[in-house]
Amino acid sequence: MKKILTGIKPTGSGMHIGNYFGAVLPLIELSKKYDTTLFIPDYHSLTSVHDGDILTQNKARMLREYISLLPKNVRIFEQSKIDHINNMAWVLSSVTPYSLMLRAHSFKDAQNKNSDINMAIFNYPILMAADIISYDFDIVPVGKDQKQHLEFARDIAGNFNRTYGVDFFKLPEPHIDETVMTIPGTDGRKMSKSYNNHIWIFDDEKTLKKKIMSIVTGSEWLDDPKDPENCNVFALIKLFASEEKQTEIAQKYREWWYGYGHAKLELLDLILQYFSEARAKYQALEKDDNELQHRLEKGNHEANEMATQKYTQLMHIVGLWK
Amino acid sequence: MKKILTGIKPTGSGMHIGNYFGAVLPLIELSKKYDTTLFIPDYHSLTSVHDGDILTQNKARMLREYISLLPKNVRIFEQSKIDHINNMAWVLSSVTPYSLMLRAHSFKDAQNKNSDINMAIFNYPILMAADIISYDFDIVPVGKDQKQHLEFARDIAGNFNRTYGVDFFKLPEPHIDETVMTIPGTDGRKMSKSYNNHIWIFDDEKTLKKKIMSIVTGSEWLDDPKDPENCNVFALIKLFASEEKQTEIAQKYREWWYGYGHAKLELLDLILQYFSEARAKYQALEKDDNELQHRLEKGNHEANEMATQKYTQLMHIVGLWK
Repeated sequence: MKKILTGIKPTGSGMHIGNYFGAVLPLIELSKKYDTTLFIPDYHSLTSVHDGDILTQNKARMLREYISLLPKNVRIFEQSKIDHINNMAWVLSSVTPYSLMLRAHSFKDAQNKNSDINMAIFNYPILMAADIISYDFDIVPVGKDQKQHLEFARDIAGNFNRTYGVDFFKLPEPHIDETVMTIPGTDGRKMSKSYNNHIWIFDDEKTLKKKIMSIVTGSEWLDDPKDPENCNVFALIKLFASEEKQTEIAQKYREWWYGYGHAKLELLDLILQYFSEARAKYQALEKDDNELQHRLEKGNHEANEMATQKYTQLMHIVGLWK
Repeated sequence: MKKILTGIKPTGSGMHIGNYFGAVLPLIELSKKYDTTLFIPDYHSLTSVHDGDILTQNKARMLREYISLLPKNVRIFEQSKIDHINNMAWVLSSVTPYSLMLRAHSFKDAQNKNSDINMAIFNYPILMAADIISYDFDIVPVGKDQKQHLEFARDIAGNFNRTYGVDFFKLPEPHIDETVMTIPGTDGRKMSKSYNNHIWIFDDEKTLKKKIMSIVTGSEWLDDPKDPENCNVFALIKLFASEEKQTEIAQKYREWWYGYGHAKLELLDLILQYFSEARAKYQALEKDDNELQHRLEKGNHEANEMATQKYTQLMHIVGLWK
């Protein structure tokens, strides 16, 4: 069974429906075909977050979210629990041209926004390369944003192999998901925190209801027929309802007694139903995170073993350990 | 007792008399006053050496040399045996401005020589900062070349303390050795491998003799009086001979029966005598390096414990471990 690795950075503020359909659901699908590992690149968070309490909270919430959603056969580990990951990055840096790093999108973007960036931002692609090639994974899913990361990782791995005349680092293949869905937000634009049109998955029911009730709709009267295909509520319903259910609701949109308020309540029900198991688990983990810690420890241990073995071999190749 | 740390990079090719008087003897003197640690920054070697066999040999010889020369109370450890040293450097990189690194002498020098340098050269001062501040040392001896390294380490440590509002990293003080000796080589210029005018300390006797016999001298006849103060041989004799011995030899320089050949043989004797214990130990270690391994393991263990403790605290401050 081929091994696939994906990383999701601890974000600033929880998981919304757009994140779920954009990143989590595809990962769940992949886990049916591959030996799947998710790693939390928490070292990368230091490129932007310099408040210990905030980072601790963000990371804990993120772990609860993912562990509530991902099937048990997905291995989860924390980057910061891999002893040699930055040692690996150091060795790789010695075969990484400075000129390559100047071409990194992440560096250019950051420099455009801020005249003085920190060195973690500049070095980020090298650590990312170490993340990608330290465990002999076969496949890395890449969205448009991460395409260059994988290219850099393959370049750097290739440089190492050539410099030392070895076939040591496996060059992982990209997995490109062609069916990229755009999830509409409460105002019809793409769901995004920056538009504040997002719906959190793990909000309490009251907050969730309030958010759904705020979805922007047409201004037809209750007894006017409405067009489901031009409705933000229905666009979201389609994500959660079965085909039959969708047809049923679409028909109601033409009934004199059915309004947008009704549709919103149906959407709320659908969301609560869809995520009922995950939401229950999330709440349980908030009270007692033993299961989470146990699963993490297992993942951390397995990943650390793999990386340590790879690193030990590496150190013999470069001549620092004997 | 104040703690002092110094690092000496595994050089390309053994220790000569200039290295000894320039770096090793001062370290031996410091070890009489301070709790003294020498670390071997072997990760740094990867900035330039990309041949595993050569690096292994260089490092092994260097360790034999230092362990043959340094008193037992000097702790020796290998940078590459410190689990978290590059993890530490990663965290520090997040509070290190990119603009600071562009000012590093090591980067500028390398760029002047080579249009495309590797990222280990560029990142070197950050790893060096981690080396300097991960163990709570009080003092770091700095020669002219390393002055900026300590300044950078202090800057970066200060940045961290300010960013997180903590007094976590100790800012080590420089120890500047005012009595910098210039050791003459076999041609009278400063002893340096690049001039090929150096005398190895641990060469076998025959090779050592040949090198000493090649010292450039005046062309006076045997029975001409010679001026010791204008003689490359005597300049070296002064390093090894007692005051009385120096006076005695200086007088012989005026005798009709004393030639440069005699002086060279006296120098050879003085060198062999001065290093007799160290040379014997070096040869023993070539046959059996048990003692060396034992001393290293002890040093590595102690240093790794210190760094791991510091790193664990650090990870709690930045919020990645709880």
